Amino acid sequence: MSVLVVGSVALDSVETPFGKAENVIGGSGTFFSASASLLAPVMLVGVIGDDYPVEQLDPLRARGVDMAGLEQVTGESFRWRGRYRHDLNAAETLETRLGVFSHFSPKIPPQFKDAPYVFLANIDPRLQLDVLRQVNRPKLVACDTMNFWIESRRSDIVELIKHVDLITLNDGEARQLTDCSNLVKAARWIMAHGPRIVIIKKGEHGAFMFKERSIFFAPAYPLEDVFDPTGAGDSFAGGFMGYLARTGDLSDENLRRAVVVGSAMGSYAVEKFSVQRLLEITREDITARVAEFRQLVAFEQEQGSST
Amino acid sequence: MSVLVVGSVALDSVETPFGKAENVIGGSGTFFSASASLLAPVMLVGVIGDDYPVEQLDPLRARGVDMAGLEQVTGESFRWRGRYRHDLNAAETLETRLGVFSHFSPKIPPQFKDAPYVFLANIDPRLQLDVLRQVNRPKLVACDTMNFWIESRRSDIVELIKHVDLITLNDGEARQLTDCSNLVKAARWIMAHGPRIVIIKKGEHGAFMFKERSIFFAPAYPLEDVFDPTGAGDSFAGGFMGYLARTGDLSDENLRRAVVVGSAMGSYAVEKFSVQRLLEITREDITARVAEFRQLVAFEQEQGSST
Repeated sequence: MSVLVVGSVALDSVETPFGKAENVIGGSGTFFSASASLLAPVMLVGVIGDDYPVEQLDPLRARGVDMAGLEQVTGESFRWRGRYRHDLNAAETLETRLGVFSHFSPKIPPQFKDAPYVFLANIDPRLQLDVLRQVNRPKLVACDTMNFWIESRRSDIVELIKHVDLITLNDGEARQLTDCSNLVKAARWIMAHGPRIVIIKKGEHGAFMFKERSIFFAPAYPLEDVFDPTGAGDSFAGGFMGYLARTGDLSDENLRRAVVVGSAMGSYAVEKFSVQRLLEITREDITARVAEFRQLVAFEQEQGSST
Repeated sequence: MSVLVVGSVALDSVETPFGKAENVIGGSGTFFSASASLLAPVMLVGVIGDDYPVEQLDPLRARGVDMAGLEQVTGESFRWRGRYRHDLNAAETLETRLGVFSHFSPKIPPQFKDAPYVFLANIDPRLQLDVLRQVNRPKLVACDTMNFWIESRRSDIVELIKHVDLITLNDGEARQLTDCSNLVKAARWIMAHGPRIVIIKKGEHGAFMFKERSIFFAPAYPLEDVFDPTGAGDSFAGGFMGYLARTGDLSDENLRRAVVVGSAMGSYAVEKFSVQRLLEITREDITARVAEFRQLVAFEQEQGSST
């Protein structure tokens, strides 16, 4: 089964303690697609300017990303310039130029409207809602958001989440949206407002999946060399949604596996600039890392009652 | 088998968003003892002043904490006053009065010298080294430390860790001691300097146990109500060492279980002020929480090669 993603397709310039990259492909839609396409067919909806190096998207196309929904219009592409210092958890944005993205109005091609899995990457919640009006009863709708929209469009987000099955957001965003500093309470607040599944990402500290009756936690993989954290969250979402689309199974057991696959994809994404590493790896690499995740948290409870 | 702990026995005054407590029993030795004694006999070495409300230690004594090594001397007991605001991860120290603790020179009673498990709680590394000179070949020696000693007595810590099997420290302290921002590298640095087991505690983000050939991670239990985080780290250490002393088994499998038991004790400690909650719970409560930890991280890898 296929996954539809609506998000940004950008050009990133990134500086880390280990090197720099200029005008490499990035954006939430791009990272999501590079990740999910290893597992399932992906339909990408986004916008780029006439300056975009489209040939850099060829490897994604070759891997099964359908770009019929990627509009190219006159003007400058969305560009982001950022820097990470030794604390790789915190990106310092040096420049954001929205370009053609500031007038983005997603148009879902007719052949994309029946996609069973839909991911609304981090864009204006009004546009996310607009996408939902264009699609036909997907099996699972998930959305992401960010602090900027929580500040400026909170009521739209509250409206949006009435209509999604799942939301992914980071711990700071969850606290900001719900005004609960405790993450268990924050997740409960969100579930009371719509989504039945809440994934709270904590960067290098792992991710929680909250459901009405269970909590699952997956650590981040303890990498010795994090090269560039850009796109880790969208790569996580791509792995998660791609795995669900590939298996078509929404049981709790399979959702847990999907979180771990997402964590594995996030851990690969940060090993090189842009989507480079995601394009190198195979399904066997995912399997291997998922096995390492199992080892990382494995313990057996002692038999008997005294622990 | 029994555990010897050398640490502080203090009086804490704590304010949290949920209430305040004045002059309640605290200190690393106290929290460690309250936690470990649920699992194994504990021998406590420390010092208190003549103002200490010794009757408040009775419940610990009743649970098997041998206080033959707890000296009472003329002067004021160690007092700490702190506050937590909504970010319960960060304690704000309002006042520290070392009192008689500033002249503490641990004397290990003869009947304590053969303790097979020794925990050197967070005190001056020179005193920690001095304790090691007084004991007879323990089966496992573990130590804790803190930023204050890393700043002021770094070379003593480097000397100390040559002689311990295991060190527990938090992520900030691990980075500070090793000058490595990456925790995997930090753990490797420490292992190269002595300990074969390194436990890095990340507060609400869980704990890593590093060994030469394996990494284990235990999340913190996602509590809805953290009441008072004081003593969580020492309660963790108490649960960990107490479990090892009870089982006498240093296999990798059992060390992993010990980390989870430690995490369970840490999660109980923060539910009430002081050692109150630790004194209420039973071994069955530990077993129940360990089972919840298993549920929290449980997932099955899909059969076959495509993850």
